[in-house]
Amino acid sequence: LDRLGVRFIEGGWAGANPKDGEFFARMGQTHLTQARLVVFCSTRRPGISASEDPMLVPILAAATEWVTVFGKSWDLHVTEGLRTTPEENLLMIGDTIRFLRQRGRRVIYDAEHWFDGHAANPNYGLQTVAVAIAAGADWVVFCDTNGGRLPQEVAASVAAVRSQFPEFEQWGIHTHNDSGLAVANAIAAVQQGVRMVQGTINGYGERCGNANLCTLIPNLQLKLNIPCLPESQLRSLTEVSRQISELVNLAPDDHAPYVGLSAFAHKGGIHVSAVQRNPITYEHIAPELVGNDRRIVISEQSGLSNVLSKAASFGIELRKDDPACREILQQLKDLEQDGYQFEAAEASFELLMRQGVGDRPIWFTVQDFQVHCHHGLGYEITRATVKVSVKDSEHLTTAEGNGPVAALDAALRKALTAFYPAIAPVHLTDYKVRILNSDAGTEAKTRVLIEFSDHRQRWTTVGVSENIITASLRALIDGLEYGIRRTVLG
Amino acid sequence: LDRLGVRFIEGGWAGANPKDGEFFARMGQTHLTQARLVVFCSTRRPGISASEDPMLVPILAAATEWVTVFGKSWDLHVTEGLRTTPEENLLMIGDTIRFLRQRGRRVIYDAEHWFDGHAANPNYGLQTVAVAIAAGADWVVFCDTNGGRLPQEVAASVAAVRSQFPEFEQWGIHTHNDSGLAVANAIAAVQQGVRMVQGTINGYGERCGNANLCTLIPNLQLKLNIPCLPESQLRSLTEVSRQISELVNLAPDDHAPYVGLSAFAHKGGIHVSAVQRNPITYEHIAPELVGNDRRIVISEQSGLSNVLSKAASFGIELRKDDPACREILQQLKDLEQDGYQFEAAEASFELLMRQGVGDRPIWFTVQDFQVHCHHGLGYEITRATVKVSVKDSEHLTTAEGNGPVAALDAALRKALTAFYPAIAPVHLTDYKVRILNSDAGTEAKTRVLIEFSDHRQRWTTVGVSENIITASLRALIDGLEYGIRRTVLG
Repeated sequence: LDRLGVRFIEGGWAGANPKDGEFFARMGQTHLTQARLVVFCSTRRPGISASEDPMLVPILAAATEWVTVFGKSWDLHVTEGLRTTPEENLLMIGDTIRFLRQRGRRVIYDAEHWFDGHAANPNYGLQTVAVAIAAGADWVVFCDTNGGRLPQEVAASVAAVRSQFPEFEQWGIHTHNDSGLAVANAIAAVQQGVRMVQGTINGYGERCGNANLCTLIPNLQLKLNIPCLPESQLRSLTEVSRQISELVNLAPDDHAPYVGLSAFAHKGGIHVSAVQRNPITYEHIAPELVGNDRRIVISEQSGLSNVLSKAASFGIELRKDDPACREILQQLKDLEQDGYQFEAAEASFELLMRQGVGDRPIWFTVQDFQVHCHHGLGYEITRATVKVSVKDSEHLTTAEGNGPVAALDAALRKALTAFYPAIAPVHLTDYKVRILNSDAGTEAKTRVLIEFSDHRQRWTTVGVSENIITASLRALIDGLEYGIRRTVLG
Repeated sequence: LDRLGVRFIEGGWAGANPKDGEFFARMGQTHLTQARLVVFCSTRRPGISASEDPMLVPILAAATEWVTVFGKSWDLHVTEGLRTTPEENLLMIGDTIRFLRQRGRRVIYDAEHWFDGHAANPNYGLQTVAVAIAAGADWVVFCDTNGGRLPQEVAASVAAVRSQFPEFEQWGIHTHNDSGLAVANAIAAVQQGVRMVQGTINGYGERCGNANLCTLIPNLQLKLNIPCLPESQLRSLTEVSRQISELVNLAPDDHAPYVGLSAFAHKGGIHVSAVQRNPITYEHIAPELVGNDRRIVISEQSGLSNVLSKAASFGIELRKDDPACREILQQLKDLEQDGYQFEAAEASFELLMRQGVGDRPIWFTVQDFQVHCHHGLGYEITRATVKVSVKDSEHLTTAEGNGPVAALDAALRKALTAFYPAIAPVHLTDYKVRILNSDAGTEAKTRVLIEFSDHRQRWTTVGVSENIITASLRALIDGLEYGIRRTVLG
């Protein structure tokens, strides 16, 4: 996030749980170059002073210059949630901010449930903001905590508040996506002069998520000419989005605006030829501005022009009038009919295409295999045996693993590394299973995608079968073949 | 879609491929009660008359009352895409619409790339619309084909066109989500008087998708008071969304607005107790209006109040001061630390909770199991053997299946149905695999979710292990236990 160039990183509520505390302790040793670290907390408890509230001890201990304090703007939440009086809530906001300001902190005040509160009881809402500003808040942020507001409501409310506090300029917006409008609502607020936008990478957040910064930043910068990041850092947006999805271990959304794998994907033959002549015909921005790529997708709908352009991207020479071209297309359609999908398995597709043009040497052949898994009280064995022919000789190897795929991988590798030592560093990095026609229950087909890495490059292969083990083996074989090919042929 | 109450269902481009043709043939035998079926096509080719264009033959053969014709509004697409003149494009639009009108069809005219064209060459754009209206189009639809426009641009363009054609009233909007604004843009157009909104269930569509009707419909109806569907049909929205995601075999988006599994999920202890006192504190609408449910999520962040409210939803009596309550919470946290996740596996969680309160009879115990998979040229055998104790007797059963999970399921069932015949109809309906800590490669943990159905109810269980087969068996055992419990105890 710091390298991307966001200005503030809110790191959690120190003291709320051990993880958040440890985060700030560790961040004390981390040097940020562009961003400021922010700790997050609520206003003090009712009925005591801020200095008496133990909640604020770890907040100060987090030792950040900046603190976000959230407080209640909606009287309903004061009486129903906090179970205190509207007057005490005003004191809580003012005390907490002053307490932190007196200890040298700068404060971002998050006006929780701002829009709902402002609609229900505008005067009370305005009083909470007046107290926050008077107590020394550096920023006041309008929050649509329940995510239910529409852009014109956001715009009208922000405009109304700004007219009440003409001297104050540091307003922010914090939206949620419960109406599918988090990005639109943030934009509406920015168009009313708000200068801080709070959001998350990939829109991660509770319920339907927060405003997605990977959508908001390019919208603001490329569509509304509001500079957010240096151009070169904007180009890292796609990479940051994918890295963070890996860190949090959530599959990236292929259809995400700007940064999704399919955001600039073209399938239909007409689209592909038009976009190749002039990209603005089917692309709203140049994908490289956000570090993404145009993608010509190989699929059932593919025409010859897709196959040709894909071949070019693999460095395969293929001409439109070459009969191999139509054969590849036909084979592709047959395999897709069978459950294969090559959008996410380009290594398998490259092998298929090389076979079509007669450039697929046989490095090895798996004759048969067995997997045996035995599990009893206190023991568990999974063992795979494969019979592999390599260069006119046959090899029977057996290996064990934590599961059938690991065991098969180990057995295959045992047979192959003697002949192709360069594949030793190749290893599995991801394994995905998708049940096709799942209404068929255990008769359903299984599609397995396996991602491999040799520490320099990653590639993905696909296998389909009614048997998950057979499907996995098919993907394994393709992946090892691709690895051998790369290392032997370069 | 017909039962949900959408007015028009666009079924594809008859003749473009065999599937689309077959669709219209089959729909000829299907009675729709609320919706009208629409066939989709382009304007005729340049340089010939509409009656000479073979593309229109299957369009008429589709025999729908309604046809959507898309045409070019942007002169760049006319010259670069169609490679014809702007004048010929106007003739193509007029001819095609007149040809269809003369044959008794009603026409929805999709003005493709409307907003980009209107911005680049407003006069030409307006001419294309004038031609479409003069030729008898019933509807004219503004399309943001590249999905790059912002709400205020959409609003301004729609308002400008409407002022040019004050007599015409049947305007529509068709948006794409490339800027994350498909829903906001459609709303902006509706607020300028547009009456038809084109979109898709769950927002499915190329690149970043189309406008998501599951978000748009409730936004229009519940937030802007624009009636779209009868109230009772709006309540089927969540079900329709999930059914369609099953039909197209895509995992539903748990974070989708309104219809997602997490759209009304509450995790934090404070949220949960507030929302139980007064739902509007943390919910922008009542979930039942769209057929969704409030969900108290069991997770690492769970507090006792979540466990209590979950227990209540299972019909388990549990009091806050019962020590079982804390024990369940601790066990939950330990299992989650281990890779378990109960958000999507409530049947496993219910069993865990019943165990905590001493209400988990032992129906059967799996002592050990073996899976053997042998695959050679032309043959493939997967066989599972399980040793199961049921009611003080031991049973060794073996069965075959298309894969290890099917074989294990069959072997277990063979042992159990003799004692619990009511589980015969229980079957697997979905099987999901997620690799945890996937950077650990084949050492990674595997989390398996299995969905079961007995034709009346569905339930999902979870199993975690480094071995996919062991993880699967754990989920299988829970699922069958839950099925037995349901049928035996009612």
